[in-house]
Amino acid sequence: MDPADLIISARWIIPVEPEGQVLDDHALVVRDGRILDLLPAAEALRRYAAREVLQRPHHVLLPGLVNAHTHSPMTLFRGMADDLPLDIWLGRHIWPAEARWVDAGFVRDGTELAMLEMLRGGTTCFNDMYFFPDVIAHAVDASGLRAGIGMIVLEHPTVWAQDADEYLRKGLAVRDQFRGHPRIAMSFAPHAPYTVADDSFRQIRLLANELDTQLHMHVHETASEIDDSQKRYARRPLQRLDELGLLTPQLAAVHMTQLTAAEIPLLAERGVSVVHCPESNLKLASGFCPVSELARAGINLALGTDGAGSNNDLDMFGEMRSCALLAKGVAQRADVAPAAAVLGMATHNGAKALGLGDRIGSLLAGKEADVICVDLSAAATQPVYDPISQLVYATSRDQVSDAWVAGRQLLADHQPLLADAPAILARAEAWRARLSTSRGSVAHD
Amino acid sequence: MDPADLIISARWIIPVEPEGQVLDDHALVVRDGRILDLLPAAEALRRYAAREVLQRPHHVLLPGLVNAHTHSPMTLFRGMADDLPLDIWLGRHIWPAEARWVDAGFVRDGTELAMLEMLRGGTTCFNDMYFFPDVIAHAVDASGLRAGIGMIVLEHPTVWAQDADEYLRKGLAVRDQFRGHPRIAMSFAPHAPYTVADDSFRQIRLLANELDTQLHMHVHETASEIDDSQKRYARRPLQRLDELGLLTPQLAAVHMTQLTAAEIPLLAERGVSVVHCPESNLKLASGFCPVSELARAGINLALGTDGAGSNNDLDMFGEMRSCALLAKGVAQRADVAPAAAVLGMATHNGAKALGLGDRIGSLLAGKEADVICVDLSAAATQPVYDPISQLVYATSRDQVSDAWVAGRQLLADHQPLLADAPAILARAEAWRARLSTSRGSVAHD
Repeated sequence: MDPADLIISARWIIPVEPEGQVLDDHALVVRDGRILDLLPAAEALRRYAAREVLQRPHHVLLPGLVNAHTHSPMTLFRGMADDLPLDIWLGRHIWPAEARWVDAGFVRDGTELAMLEMLRGGTTCFNDMYFFPDVIAHAVDASGLRAGIGMIVLEHPTVWAQDADEYLRKGLAVRDQFRGHPRIAMSFAPHAPYTVADDSFRQIRLLANELDTQLHMHVHETASEIDDSQKRYARRPLQRLDELGLLTPQLAAVHMTQLTAAEIPLLAERGVSVVHCPESNLKLASGFCPVSELARAGINLALGTDGAGSNNDLDMFGEMRSCALLAKGVAQRADVAPAAAVLGMATHNGAKALGLGDRIGSLLAGKEADVICVDLSAAATQPVYDPISQLVYATSRDQVSDAWVAGRQLLADHQPLLADAPAILARAEAWRARLSTSRGSVAHD
Repeated sequence: MDPADLIISARWIIPVEPEGQVLDDHALVVRDGRILDLLPAAEALRRYAAREVLQRPHHVLLPGLVNAHTHSPMTLFRGMADDLPLDIWLGRHIWPAEARWVDAGFVRDGTELAMLEMLRGGTTCFNDMYFFPDVIAHAVDASGLRAGIGMIVLEHPTVWAQDADEYLRKGLAVRDQFRGHPRIAMSFAPHAPYTVADDSFRQIRLLANELDTQLHMHVHETASEIDDSQKRYARRPLQRLDELGLLTPQLAAVHMTQLTAAEIPLLAERGVSVVHCPESNLKLASGFCPVSELARAGINLALGTDGAGSNNDLDMFGEMRSCALLAKGVAQRADVAPAAAVLGMATHNGAKALGLGDRIGSLLAGKEADVICVDLSAAATQPVYDPISQLVYATSRDQVSDAWVAGRQLLADHQPLLADAPAILARAEAWRARLSTSRGSVAHD
């Protein structure tokens, strides 16, 4: 018998690659943090001697979900300002609150709250963009989770940096500090075409090529972004980005609610990944991302929750459901965005968008063992004809029972093993108290 | 001190009437199944001597949710056929499966599964339309839940009846049997304008007036329904229904994705309730209900999940979120369908659509005590600036801890008190096995 660290057998296993496959009564075998084998459960027990053998008889085992766009620390602003037009939400609530409250402690506490929420909901990897990426990286390191962390770049000053040069310099210092970290992938995160100048984009393009690093950016989120670009640059943002050499397979372009018929083949040709955030786009009335057309063009489509300020949760199960449902409504076709494709968006495609497609996102042998178990025995997910349909259309985040990252168990029987949940929740409550009672309160009065 | 049966104190109480109100550290006092008082918790303990006093320190207490449109037994078809155009979904999957499998046992087992799911997710009242309303009524009686149950009417034969006369006769017999039941309200449920003839509608109108009974009908669900009506009747379904006298305050018109600018004021004038089913409309690509315009016209807007065949869950928290988000995207305005209004749709407006507006749906003294508690202490719902926002935008169904109907507790610490959950789930699994293995299987092969 071959040695292994862990065997997990489950009622169903969904490897994601190949799309749509469901294996009955199989087992996943893990050694040294990687997937060693995926085979019928009975055979696994005959062939491998593992230190730990787990049985999940009412569960689906699948790759951990990849949240391809979020701003983790904004969990501390969750529900602070809702049902407002984008300009008032940003200008009167989010930006003033950020200017007043965001510091290293806020970012640490908000990131820890976000990671606790994501872990419990089956997200094992997330793609972040916020201030103090150093603090986020330290928190990710301690959590056991995996993340892409953006080196955010803006032209205007914030609490994190004064100008594009300083953002870049500080970002690269964080990158140096976490180089080679097995679970952290730093990326360049120019905020958006409307907040970053051509010179900065040119520098970022050079650096991204040189350092072989991913790009993470908000692009074509709203109609007014397009209008402003036409006025200022006499071109649409995508055209400007293309001329600057930013449209490459390294780019994860987030939102993309405003696309012409000509831009879709351009994105496909350039190999750009699109990160769709359906709930944020709906909540801020930003427009509809043409998911079915992007999929038909062969574009890599990932899925993100966006920050808790505009969602208001970091629930990838809810996001999968919203994606599958909304795509049908927008395309006026019930057969687009089928469940298996949407599950691929939330796993393998997300991994690809983060430059991790060969390491995580599906259950191929050799990949790192980022996996979750989901208990389908609840009334709301019975009976089970099709476990993939069940995950996308009926499962709630709270049915996630277990999670591993690189073979290390982080969630067992719904309980986090590393995170100190009571302390994290107490710190979140302390921030709420501070934000709510101070002058210039951002809470509902 | 005045006697009471039950005092429930909670961190927050949301009475729904008045809209948007949140009471801190209040208590609800219940006597003889009705709400006796709603007052500060400390005062409640001084003023009332109750047999039972419960404290819910991290929870919101609010009216039980009202699912204003579903087909409960279809839970047994959950996930059986997805991602298909409406005609193929209905014609090749749902109708053949119904013809082959639906009988009294199917309806009983499916209704029990649906009620278990709904209860655990905070739905204390639902509005049903399916075959064997007698079986549904018996199941509701035993469950302790509250329901509106439709006397379904079609022209074509099914396992329940052969023609409109027989549907009506059998429905009225069920109505007689359950007349005066404290938790069951029978309604007339002509299936839809395209499946019911003018003569039957005239009969139903007479009976509904005579018996002072609500009407529950699918109306304007798809564009092809409108086209077919134009061809067959030379008028849109709403015009036809108006000429037949069906547009009255008794009518709960479900779906309404196809509305002209002139039809909206007509609905308002007639006092029709509209039941919006956002997830079903999206999943079947039926079109978008103009929620913000209906609200602006002052129409009573309720919320329903539809059946699990087209949703695929009976989760009113998910439905509230989908409603609030989708309305913004469709109206291209982030300030429509605010959280408090959507919570009203899922409670008070639903009660009104079922003709129960003076009995349930808000926490006014004198109303029956249909209430739920929701635990907001999870990471995904912290911190709490605004409990109403949290319920609509961040809460999952699994956070519902307790539920009462007419003052009787049916759910305690997430566990059902009356329902035999293991037996219900075992019967659901038995149906799945039967449906999956037989020839002419409806499951994914």
